[in-house]
Amino acid sequence: MITLSLIGIGTGNPDHLTAEAARALNAADLILLPRKGEDKSDLADVRRLILAQVLTAPVPVAEYDTPERADQTDYLGAVNDWHDAIAAIWLEVITAALPQGGKVALMVWGDPSLYDSTLRIAARLGDVAIRVIPGITSVQVLTAAHAITLNTLAAPVTITTGRQLRDHGWPEGAVTLVVMLDKGGAFTGLDPADLTIWWGAYVGMPQQVLIHGPLAEVSERILATRARLRAEHGWIMDIYLLRKGCP
Amino acid sequence: MITLSLIGIGTGNPDHLTAEAARALNAADLILLPRKGEDKSDLADVRRLILAQVLTAPVPVAEYDTPERADQTDYLGAVNDWHDAIAAIWLEVITAALPQGGKVALMVWGDPSLYDSTLRIAARLGDVAIRVIPGITSVQVLTAAHAITLNTLAAPVTITTGRQLRDHGWPEGAVTLVVMLDKGGAFTGLDPADLTIWWGAYVGMPQQVLIHGPLAEVSERILATRARLRAEHGWIMDIYLLRKGCP
Repeated sequence: MITLSLIGIGTGNPDHLTAEAARALNAADLILLPRKGEDKSDLADVRRLILAQVLTAPVPVAEYDTPERADQTDYLGAVNDWHDAIAAIWLEVITAALPQGGKVALMVWGDPSLYDSTLRIAARLGDVAIRVIPGITSVQVLTAAHAITLNTLAAPVTITTGRQLRDHGWPEGAVTLVVMLDKGGAFTGLDPADLTIWWGAYVGMPQQVLIHGPLAEVSERILATRARLRAEHGWIMDIYLLRKGCP
Repeated sequence: MITLSLIGIGTGNPDHLTAEAARALNAADLILLPRKGEDKSDLADVRRLILAQVLTAPVPVAEYDTPERADQTDYLGAVNDWHDAIAAIWLEVITAALPQGGKVALMVWGDPSLYDSTLRIAARLGDVAIRVIPGITSVQVLTAAHAITLNTLAAPVTITTGRQLRDHGWPEGAVTLVVMLDKGGAFTGLDPADLTIWWGAYVGMPQQVLIHGPLAEVSERILATRARLRAEHGWIMDIYLLRKGCP
């Protein structure tokens, strides 16, 4: 019998790790560690750093290469094929290392529930018990870094993607909108009047950069900063919160 | 100079605490601890338990009584008056304990960004530097407990309150809706056809209870369970996720 723990690790600051996550890593018989992927970022290094900090005794680590996602026009189809391929790799690695079964741990950027494929990939594994350990998301790290609330008093919040914002515009009735996975500047399609933005790149990491202000005033600065940071680091992850009707 | 750290502590499981949160508690010159309030729940006890687990040397703790919120028909007005009163208590307690200034820490249920008043109260303190340390929210604990994703593939998510759902119905265009702070059964106002619910009470705590299924089938069971649990424990905190179009 195989148990797979999907462990949220936060956004790149090893101190985001919870006590529950540290315990699960120490209890594992095998830790799966993706060697690359995710935009050539330093994420595999962050995972190694976390293990170096929290493991109180050695745990076998199986590194694997994340396959490339096909660049099809059929976005959902490409994603599904990609998930199939990753699940096949996991099964192969786990079966080789733990032929009698055991406890496997996998560190997930942020939290496994939010814009992350790990649970969908894990669902393809068949007879494997899945356990999820929550982690700090970039949404929380963004609001903490800016010292703002996510919601305005008693009001709703929508979390969406750059693609959704680009394709469908501002969601009907939304007051606060958090945008993730934006390839860059989806907010330029919006009427900036009455919108305030709180933007962050590499939130929680040493290279964190924050900008906020009326969208009309800071939009260009965000786009230029994002392009510069991306060139400088070779990769970027950013997130932003847009709010209507702020002073 | 006073620095106030608002520290997200997760939802009642001391193991939700991050390493960053533990460090901030240990670095404090004073920890503010609300003695009661929040629906007669055991939350002050959880805070004491966390301190007993993570403090490596004694830190002065100042307990205070949270004032009652007036039960006005003007909801926002009552909340504002209540926040003024709490801010006045904090200032009094901090000034008495740290007349020369110093580092103050306050543990916040969940994360300080999400349906929590602490940042709004802190904004009333005047010349105090505010620092926010993110914590695990009940949204993440709910999805982890059910081992589900928050969003469906590449789709948006709306987080709202029971009051909003009751007053305004299903938000236009939403696929996934998370409902917090429901006094009970706001989902009964919805057409349950095509809706699936994942419900949890006391998520993350030893007394956690989960129910999920098509809303039409489990709605009554959730209402009955909620009433029973509330009577049994004297308080309840619950949260649920509703999704359209699930099998």
